[in-house]
Amino acid sequence: MQRIWTTQLGSYAGERVQIAGWLHRLRQLSNVTFLILRDGQGLAQVVIDDPRLTDELANWYHESVLLVEGVVVVEPQAPGGMEIHQPSIKLLANSAEPPPFDLFRPALKAQLPTILDHAPLSLRHPRRRAQFLIASASISGFRSALQTLNFVEIQTPKIVASATEGGANVFKIDYFGTPAYLAQSPQFYKQMMVGVFERVFEIGPVFRAEPHSTTRHINEYVSLDAEMGFIDDHRTVMTTLTEVIRGMLDTVRRDAHDATALLGIDLPQVPPTIPIIHFSGAQDLIWRETGEDPRGEPDLAPAHERWLGDWVQREYGSDFLFVEGYPMAKRPFYTHPAPQHPEYSNSFDLLFRGLELVTGGQRRHLYDDYLAALATHGLPVEPFVGYLQAFKYGMPPHGGFAIGLERWVAQLTGASNIRETTLFPRDIHRLTP
Amino acid sequence: MQRIWTTQLGSYAGERVQIAGWLHRLRQLSNVTFLILRDGQGLAQVVIDDPRLTDELANWYHESVLLVEGVVVVEPQAPGGMEIHQPSIKLLANSAEPPPFDLFRPALKAQLPTILDHAPLSLRHPRRRAQFLIASASISGFRSALQTLNFVEIQTPKIVASATEGGANVFKIDYFGTPAYLAQSPQFYKQMMVGVFERVFEIGPVFRAEPHSTTRHINEYVSLDAEMGFIDDHRTVMTTLTEVIRGMLDTVRRDAHDATALLGIDLPQVPPTIPIIHFSGAQDLIWRETGEDPRGEPDLAPAHERWLGDWVQREYGSDFLFVEGYPMAKRPFYTHPAPQHPEYSNSFDLLFRGLELVTGGQRRHLYDDYLAALATHGLPVEPFVGYLQAFKYGMPPHGGFAIGLERWVAQLTGASNIRETTLFPRDIHRLTP
Repeated sequence: MQRIWTTQLGSYAGERVQIAGWLHRLRQLSNVTFLILRDGQGLAQVVIDDPRLTDELANWYHESVLLVEGVVVVEPQAPGGMEIHQPSIKLLANSAEPPPFDLFRPALKAQLPTILDHAPLSLRHPRRRAQFLIASASISGFRSALQTLNFVEIQTPKIVASATEGGANVFKIDYFGTPAYLAQSPQFYKQMMVGVFERVFEIGPVFRAEPHSTTRHINEYVSLDAEMGFIDDHRTVMTTLTEVIRGMLDTVRRDAHDATALLGIDLPQVPPTIPIIHFSGAQDLIWRETGEDPRGEPDLAPAHERWLGDWVQREYGSDFLFVEGYPMAKRPFYTHPAPQHPEYSNSFDLLFRGLELVTGGQRRHLYDDYLAALATHGLPVEPFVGYLQAFKYGMPPHGGFAIGLERWVAQLTGASNIRETTLFPRDIHRLTP
Repeated sequence: MQRIWTTQLGSYAGERVQIAGWLHRLRQLSNVTFLILRDGQGLAQVVIDDPRLTDELANWYHESVLLVEGVVVVEPQAPGGMEIHQPSIKLLANSAEPPPFDLFRPALKAQLPTILDHAPLSLRHPRRRAQFLIASASISGFRSALQTLNFVEIQTPKIVASATEGGANVFKIDYFGTPAYLAQSPQFYKQMMVGVFERVFEIGPVFRAEPHSTTRHINEYVSLDAEMGFIDDHRTVMTTLTEVIRGMLDTVRRDAHDATALLGIDLPQVPPTIPIIHFSGAQDLIWRETGEDPRGEPDLAPAHERWLGDWVQREYGSDFLFVEGYPMAKRPFYTHPAPQHPEYSNSFDLLFRGLELVTGGQRRHLYDDYLAALATHGLPVEPFVGYLQAFKYGMPPHGGFAIGLERWVAQLTGASNIRETTLFPRDIHRLTP
């Protein structure tokens, strides 16, 4: 007999079927036992009134793997409106001991470190699964939105000869006796690839050796990167990003519908045009409206980003806000200055409900500008020779953006710690499982 | 005016359009100059009969970036059957010096090390681009074939606390003062995730510190990994793999048609069922037919794989052959033995035209079997505690496979060195660009 998914039971009323999965829950009442079986897709209720079978089941711990055959019966009270009667049950693999926390409760009742220490188990909880189905759908949406716009998917190396932005916070590797580093971002490579395909994207890991521990940082994460050529300026990139965010949310809505329903998430709408405010205008606004004076600061404080999130919601009914024109002072050397006001950059952040979600901008594209910018930043040319080839042999105006996947999912699902939306997080204190 | 792609000219005959791209070639005849412009999609011919413009162009090196406006005229001799007349041309970015090799010739006339040293430039050659369009389409096909079968896309960590298979050939990292490693494969994580979603796949980098240099090995590559639960045995995995290979080739055929045409590639057909031969049967066959006696060897020699490729082509007209049942002796500890012949494993290789393309198999799934297998292999339990949780709390029979992307593209396109199908290869002698 061909096994079916628990989510397919609705099409098999009255028929004998085979399902398989994990012993999610067992509830023994006085003269009937309910077994909830969890498979890769959902849950199914199995009704057991054979006392011998009930006795046998009592020997198996939660999470044992079972093969169940039985008849599908309509039961509006059961998950999916169906349940299995007259079951025969075969044990495929016993759970060696009872799980340290219950997976059948609405939420995991354990501290985050315990949940993370037991990731192979805790990820089986329906709410945790839902978060990663949203991650997976987000990636699909990112990819298909960009492919529609003729972006080519690439994979660039993660072992690199020099630190991306010449800074600290890189992990060192011993590469056959030569020092090497883990890539902090695919920035240089995606730019080089603009010279090849004009429009490229990459979905891959990035590594940041930041030696601090916060709820918003992990040391390895998945970066959704895009870069495109022949732009007017950063505004072209912002238009593309708007389409990409819309595509990601549409795909989550379509492909992860059950997951968003289970988590009770209210997915944001992307307005036809996302409001834009200049960095200096944002500082002025905060000063006028709140009395606090951030003018002269090179960046926005998280509290001010939250204030801007409330403001754009109030004034424009938008969950999103572009802040453009961050000062050049704190931006990396490849950042393109604003032609009319070169102390500001053609860069932007996208705020989502008051939290920074995406950073992007226009990059320099002229070889001589790069040589000058490296000098200004006190950086040597030698480690950048390979990268600089792209500009030496002709590069168009270009720019791009990067979305941190785990942070995107955390903000979408309201997770309070980015570790909850990372399968196997890596932080300064955690390297396993 | 809205810029269009060179490949769209066919829809604009008689109209004035804007195109943009790189100065791919300039051919000055006595009274007319032909400029070939290359953009992210293709090539277009621009006809220049204004001597002042011709003079100006002579100042710009190949690969300079240009914006061209002109009228589209039907010309069957030109690439795409169209050319641009009465052009006005604007220089967007000069190439600072002439390229060290010509990108307009049918093949790059340079040695491989030179080509790789100049990757940001050499990748612009149409034939190199074509290889990576095939890579990109292969990935799309891999992903969509698996998503159709309810596989969930995951991203697992690349920084790990212990070497995947307890062996050598791992890159060491300094992780905040603790030794850590780069993942040799997502093997353990994809297995753990079978406990969560049953069916998962991952597209990501893997790292092998193999200290040798061959045309078939690089030290960082892209692995297309899949793993699935509730299988009968490795044959279930082979059936899935067959569908995935079919999907990859169908997508290459559809999405990378121009690329395969440019490279003159004859894409293989996947037969409804790929022939299967047992490892020991293959050895017997080689012995009977060639007189060489490989019986007793724990693996197949490359020459014998090639012989089997010829044999399956001759006997079954198939480009593909499954070899199943490799001896347990040389397989990693998680390999599932064949129940009736435990000296052989439930593993397989897929040969494509006589070359090993995919390795896969059934894995052990019972906790006690893992403890025994680790002991047999002389491996301690402690580094595997996180991984073993998956089995402690119930795991179904499962298995999977891994395809090396660069090797797949090399074999499909007939590239003689895997470095040709890697954007920025990493080997024992190469860490840049």
